[in-house]
Amino acid sequence: MTMTPETILTPEAARAYELDRRHVFHSWSAQAALTPTVITAAEGCYVWDGAGNRLLDFSSMLVNTNIGHQHPKVIAAIAEQAAKLCTVAPQFANDARSEAARLIAERTPGDLDTIFFTNGGADAVEHAIRMARLHTGRYKVLSRYRSYHGGTETAVNVTGDPRRWPNDHGNTGTVHFFGPFLYRSEFDAETEAQETDRALAHLARTIEMEGPSTIAAIVLESVPGTAGIMVPTTEYLAGVRELCDTHGIVFIADEVMAGFGRTGKWFAIENFGVIPDLITFAKGVNSGYVPLGGVAISAAIAATFADRVYPGGLTYSGHPLAAAAAVATINAMTEERIVENAAEIGERVLGPGLRELAQRHPSIGEVRGLGVFWAVELVRDRATREPLAPYGGTSPAMNELVAACRARGLLPFVNFNRLHVVPPCVITEAEAKEGLAILDRALIVADAHTTS
Amino acid sequence: MTMTPETILTPEAARAYELDRRHVFHSWSAQAALTPTVITAAEGCYVWDGAGNRLLDFSSMLVNTNIGHQHPKVIAAIAEQAAKLCTVAPQFANDARSEAARLIAERTPGDLDTIFFTNGGADAVEHAIRMARLHTGRYKVLSRYRSYHGGTETAVNVTGDPRRWPNDHGNTGTVHFFGPFLYRSEFDAETEAQETDRALAHLARTIEMEGPSTIAAIVLESVPGTAGIMVPTTEYLAGVRELCDTHGIVFIADEVMAGFGRTGKWFAIENFGVIPDLITFAKGVNSGYVPLGGVAISAAIAATFADRVYPGGLTYSGHPLAAAAAVATINAMTEERIVENAAEIGERVLGPGLRELAQRHPSIGEVRGLGVFWAVELVRDRATREPLAPYGGTSPAMNELVAACRARGLLPFVNFNRLHVVPPCVITEAEAKEGLAILDRALIVADAHTTS
Ligand SMILES: Cc1ncc(COP(=O)(O)O)c(C=O)c1O
Ligand SMILES: Cc1ncc(COP(=O)(O)O)c(C=O)c1O
Repeated sequence: MTMTPETILTPEAARAYELDRRHVFHSWSAQAALTPTVITAAEGCYVWDGAGNRLLDFSSMLVNTNIGHQHPKVIAAIAEQAAKLCTVAPQFANDARSEAARLIAERTPGDLDTIFFTNGGADAVEHAIRMARLHTGRYKVLSRYRSYHGGTETAVNVTGDPRRWPNDHGNTGTVHFFGPFLYRSEFDAETEAQETDRALAHLARTIEMEGPSTIAAIVLESVPGTAGIMVPTTEYLAGVRELCDTHGIVFIADEVMAGFGRTGKWFAIENFGVIPDLITFAKGVNSGYVPLGGVAISAAIAATFADRVYPGGLTYSGHPLAAAAAVATINAMTEERIVENAAEIGERVLGPGLRELAQRHPSIGEVRGLGVFWAVELVRDRATREPLAPYGGTSPAMNELVAACRARGLLPFVNFNRLHVVPPCVITEAEAKEGLAILDRALIVADAHTTS
Repeated sequence: MTMTPETILTPEAARAYELDRRHVFHSWSAQAALTPTVITAAEGCYVWDGAGNRLLDFSSMLVNTNIGHQHPKVIAAIAEQAAKLCTVAPQFANDARSEAARLIAERTPGDLDTIFFTNGGADAVEHAIRMARLHTGRYKVLSRYRSYHGGTETAVNVTGDPRRWPNDHGNTGTVHFFGPFLYRSEFDAETEAQETDRALAHLARTIEMEGPSTIAAIVLESVPGTAGIMVPTTEYLAGVRELCDTHGIVFIADEVMAGFGRTGKWFAIENFGVIPDLITFAKGVNSGYVPLGGVAISAAIAATFADRVYPGGLTYSGHPLAAAAAVATINAMTEERIVENAAEIGERVLGPGLRELAQRHPSIGEVRGLGVFWAVELVRDRATREPLAPYGGTSPAMNELVAACRARGLLPFVNFNRLHVVPPCVITEAEAKEGLAILDRALIVADAHTTS
């Protein structure tokens, strides 16, 4: 997506672009070749770029604007809290923070009723791991390949994607295993039941070989997000819970991306009826309107720190402005039945619509997901399942697909050989269909790269 | 400071308190015994507690509200940006982010003109260390005892205070050395010049013994904050710069607490005319009104990531709402000469006032600082310098002092045996004197614990 900002951008957007290129260092990138699209406005499921083009946001930015862009109730709550009290230090109590904690605790499964607030997802994962280590007196953390848990040093080392590699010095006490992923089975499985059984046996053996008494925690995205939206079976997560119980291992469900409505439930883990010991969250908790993350803590782990100091903290823990945005977001999502909408759009529109596209586009190897959380696995060949871009990389085919989506007014989310369909949870049937229609046209570009 | 919220709090504050105790997990604490003060409102240098008491904020919360509480220009900018565009993903460009980067780059020394935005101080330190490691191809990081750098795993392990201990598993590649601190000299020095020389020789020898070719970075708070506001000499920081240059080590100045006006300069390092390679910032950049931190990057280190991917990032990097708050804060601080006010209040009021208190209160062992960044070292005995609370702990004497301050309407910042005088940079002469007068009365309590 190269642009010539001088010719097409408004003067304000051109200045934003020019200053960006002079002064802003971007995440996960080589900086010299960047030509970032300027975003100047947003509303609901749409954003506007610096040339005035409207784009249907099928990415929810980084899968965080679950309530849609610029929800008026959240905007109003931010302005109101800003006028009242922006910031207090974590050692005090504050009504916005208390109410956010109450609303979150009300929605978490089991007795995960104590909330430690952080600024985002990575620090939530860092602190959850610390809690697990101190609670168990063990150090090692198991997580799956094909996962993402954040960018700080511990979080990126539990991550199971190539972003870990340049940060992996072999010293963070993290061990990776293979999770269930039938389409690219590590276990030569041919059915979901086989994949579940074999993945659980593999995890059980990994625990056995690593030494149960050395393992503090298993960190798992309830539904892995960036890595490919591989919805596990209920049996798999129940099996993980059982292994954790057997061996005294803390089960950390990372719900930073899957939580707060994305899967059509408040927490993705609810789809499987399993109760973890810790839940990490961020993104959807207030749709990222103000940076916020956190850890929901079980009664047993909270009790560990009743009389013993928890050795962690941060200046903005329980930030009132961020908390007020969470209160307004959760209340609006409840009142407006936004979580229910995500479930329904998934079942009635996105699921059937994507499966229908799969029938007509040879580049689609598999469609999987739930709620407003869908992955389209793009392949060069349906028989060999050769991905349209290599693991950890991109390809001309994927770049052309992105450009085709953008040219037709759709902002997609892509990772390696996958297109993720992850619009805001507020998306209407008409908007979802508009997006599917654009994808239908854009996928022709991908089809041209298939060999079948 | 125990309270009986039922009897003294307003109904709203009582509910905030009750929900806090039921659902909120607090930083750096054993949770069971907490009785947090409810903060319900704030303005300028004052906050109000849940019983309606006004308190003069000599802590700036966690030394972050440099512009004072609820500055109208920043509040207005937050409401305005919220109404316009709360959040965009880091891969896009956005006018608020671009302008914040420009304003910060305009103020940083040297060519530290590229800004990577984070959510707070800890992740700024994590990313600065990562940049240094990848830039040098080395792993080890040196930092001083008596320092604080944040709560995530790498940040807490470069930290040189007891909060590191429960998180130290010996595997983060961090090595601590002693910095200059004449009042409690590690080097048996009797003058600042001796302390500087010997501390530099100690650092040079530490580098020699650790192996210069193994050391990626030296991380130093330009003026150590939480650890005691030990203002270094110009010669010391120039010597550190020279050692870094000689050995190809990255000099990271942690300005999370000392930056953005606290010392009477935009960055504390300016007091010493030294240019580091990376500056970490947070807190004062927007006074914590919206969570924000970052790293200012030298041209040489930015060039390392021109064509090579920087393997780090976060969902809220360059968050528009946080950036807009920074733009408004920096502009208001400039227009209203708030940094100059901090310098002047330090020189004309706080410095002389605290030194005057030291003459009359035997519990004061030393007063040191600059701008609105002062430490009062409290001792049981001026001759032996025995601290009024042990390193890493508290004491009845310190608790009584805090209670005496609070009872007289002052919110103090204390750490171990020290009282820090760290009000907002906007503090007036009258407010500073009001605070000093309260301290004068409260210190009688500390004096009663002295033996001299
Ligand atoms: C599952 C998961 N965990 C953690 C993170 C890290 O969150 P953040 O980017 O806010 O640090 C992400 C971000 O995408 C995520 O998807
Ligand atoms: C010098 C310094 N660095 C880093 C930090 C960590 O910042 P945060 O609490 O925003 O993570 C602090 C916080 O007090 C600090 O004073």
